[in-house]
Amino acid sequence: MRVFIAGIDGYLGWPLAQYLTARGHDVAGVDTLFRRQWVEEVGSHSAIPVFSIEERLAAFCERYGKDLLFRQGDLLDYPFLRDFLAEFRPDALVHLGEMPSAPYSMIDQDHAAFTQHNNVIGSLNLLWAMREVCPQAHLVKLGTMGEYGTPNLDIPEGFFEVEYRGRKDYLPFPRQAGSFYHWSKVHDSNNTMFACKIWGLRATDIMQGVVFGTQIDEMGDDPRLRSRLDFDQCFGTAINRFCCQAVIDHPLTLYGRGGQTRGFLPMRDSMQCLTLAVENPPEAGEYRVFNQFEECYNVEELANMVQEVGQSIGLDVEIHHYENPRQEMEEHYFNPDRQHLIDLGYQPTHDVKAEMRIMLQDLIPHKARILEKHGILIPDIRWDGTRHRSEIIDEQVAPIEVG
Amino acid sequence: MRVFIAGIDGYLGWPLAQYLTARGHDVAGVDTLFRRQWVEEVGSHSAIPVFSIEERLAAFCERYGKDLLFRQGDLLDYPFLRDFLAEFRPDALVHLGEMPSAPYSMIDQDHAAFTQHNNVIGSLNLLWAMREVCPQAHLVKLGTMGEYGTPNLDIPEGFFEVEYRGRKDYLPFPRQAGSFYHWSKVHDSNNTMFACKIWGLRATDIMQGVVFGTQIDEMGDDPRLRSRLDFDQCFGTAINRFCCQAVIDHPLTLYGRGGQTRGFLPMRDSMQCLTLAVENPPEAGEYRVFNQFEECYNVEELANMVQEVGQSIGLDVEIHHYENPRQEMEEHYFNPDRQHLIDLGYQPTHDVKAEMRIMLQDLIPHKARILEKHGILIPDIRWDGTRHRSEIIDEQVAPIEVG
Repeated sequence: MRVFIAGIDGYLGWPLAQYLTARGHDVAGVDTLFRRQWVEEVGSHSAIPVFSIEERLAAFCERYGKDLLFRQGDLLDYPFLRDFLAEFRPDALVHLGEMPSAPYSMIDQDHAAFTQHNNVIGSLNLLWAMREVCPQAHLVKLGTMGEYGTPNLDIPEGFFEVEYRGRKDYLPFPRQAGSFYHWSKVHDSNNTMFACKIWGLRATDIMQGVVFGTQIDEMGDDPRLRSRLDFDQCFGTAINRFCCQAVIDHPLTLYGRGGQTRGFLPMRDSMQCLTLAVENPPEAGEYRVFNQFEECYNVEELANMVQEVGQSIGLDVEIHHYENPRQEMEEHYFNPDRQHLIDLGYQPTHDVKAEMRIMLQDLIPHKARILEKHGILIPDIRWDGTRHRSEIIDEQVAPIEVG
Repeated sequence: MRVFIAGIDGYLGWPLAQYLTARGHDVAGVDTLFRRQWVEEVGSHSAIPVFSIEERLAAFCERYGKDLLFRQGDLLDYPFLRDFLAEFRPDALVHLGEMPSAPYSMIDQDHAAFTQHNNVIGSLNLLWAMREVCPQAHLVKLGTMGEYGTPNLDIPEGFFEVEYRGRKDYLPFPRQAGSFYHWSKVHDSNNTMFACKIWGLRATDIMQGVVFGTQIDEMGDDPRLRSRLDFDQCFGTAINRFCCQAVIDHPLTLYGRGGQTRGFLPMRDSMQCLTLAVENPPEAGEYRVFNQFEECYNVEELANMVQEVGQSIGLDVEIHHYENPRQEMEEHYFNPDRQHLIDLGYQPTHDVKAEMRIMLQDLIPHKARILEKHGILIPDIRWDGTRHRSEIIDEQVAPIEVG
């Protein structure tokens, strides 16, 4: 299949280009290279060195025996996008080309407006371009499990049957996102659902859990083929950040009680799932939603696992609770479905600790790079619109009750 | 109270400034004056002459004995917006400053992107500016009944209790909007709900029905104080468009079967309801939703009423069914609540035909202005992204079954 990846230089886009190519697909992609700038803007860098796009593309050609068709450009530039799609004629488009950080979107008015403009209009342009030049193609759109928030109900995959005052309907499941970034993804989901309805486009909207991991097997030993791995408060997600902290003997930074439960999946599972979606398109006009994660954990459980794995390889890992800079429930019901991908053959890895061990071993050689930026490990972007660094609050936190 | 109106030059903004001022409130407002350009862009003009903003402001001062504090500017210009709010220090903000047309948003990629960017980022900026300079003020945000679409359930006011797999929660009612414009309002509603939650802002989100009417009593006889009245396919909503068509003996343009049911309200009821919302603010942190309409009608019923009223004053009114350029259900269940405004004292007019008679009498003197643009009365903006004029399909339309 011919697969177009928006955001091909990113944490998931770069490995996905390799994973799909290794399976015989023809891949092309765009990227603004903005992720590199955003991480620099918030005072950090990737723990694992990121090579220039030219070096990446050269390594790609060496390993996979063919060129990757890459163009630097923006989904906000509609003629550029439309013309590239018209030329490449993709069978599938994987849309990873959005600003992906909740805290970044909460910094101030400017960052909130940038996030929603970039994500919503970029995604809207992709829908219009598909309608115009490749209406039969399949859009695999990356949403997030964070679109749902933490309702006191089971979370179905996108839709549910509702009975209300004696009548029934099958409706979109209400979204209760927790940041302007997460809301931008809800806005995208709504626009995508509508485009499928009126234009007969086909789309899979992936409500993905938090991805962790430093590698997939396809990358081999070439450092130019490695993905980035961020550990700052904006782009460093829970397990990735914990592993980087463990490597430099910095306490793991749990926000609040640490009872926040989320779906997680290793990078290799994300690649497997996205490929399953790409290779099994829906019917024309169908908008389907996949909840994509391997297992649900609360953040304290994950910190404890990183501690245990770290200690087993000789690291000295402490855990501290910090004031939660976000506004979120720190203990709540969370029970999302994830049957659609299982039905397509998804085989969850089911070994989070093995993945953490690989990550720690990959990160130890880059300890100096992480240490160089240790000053940014304590979060200071608050959901109330102010900025100040979170203090340790261990003594105020009672253990979470089990059962 | 000090009331700030965004979109104060518009169809509702201009009468609202007068209605609130006549009740003793201090009003200020902004407008880009874009509505004037948009109507011109789609080849039309207001049936009722619209005077320049300078002439309007002069007439306002003469009639109400005080200046209206007006500035031309854009909600997308954040420093302008923030500084104006900081100077005026409003108690309430009524947000009418959005691009309000479904067909306009469906013209092409450019118009869809403009609509969502203008509406979503403008509204987001308003939320950030309130947080920064007037966090105690009350936002009255104009949404639309069109956010809900036409679910096969009763439509509550924003939220409902859901039971699902044996658990209960109180959740936002799912939205199923029918155009990129309507979705922009859903995106706004979501952002507003979130801002109330994290910043403690207070907001009333008005799911307003379709407004019709040419005047409110406060305007008196000064033509400079009249509001605009559009009849083109983009900005001319159902009853307004029908009345203009009736005045020039053009067949009323029913789309499809005409069984589409919506909530409607006369301009004077809209003023009454918005003022009730302004004068009865919610608590800090509260996000409440009002469904705002006087009564539900299907479009065929409305056309029949315009025909009847028109004939009673000597007009020759035909009705034709045209191919529906939209994608929407043409016969469906529709039963929205509207108790919140009644609880605050809203007294519905309950005389649609009397209002239609006033409208026709107001429009007859402007027959030549409408005739001048009669070429734009047949819709050609299609929801599938193409453009061609709708044909008459009377013979294909079976009568709607009653009961």
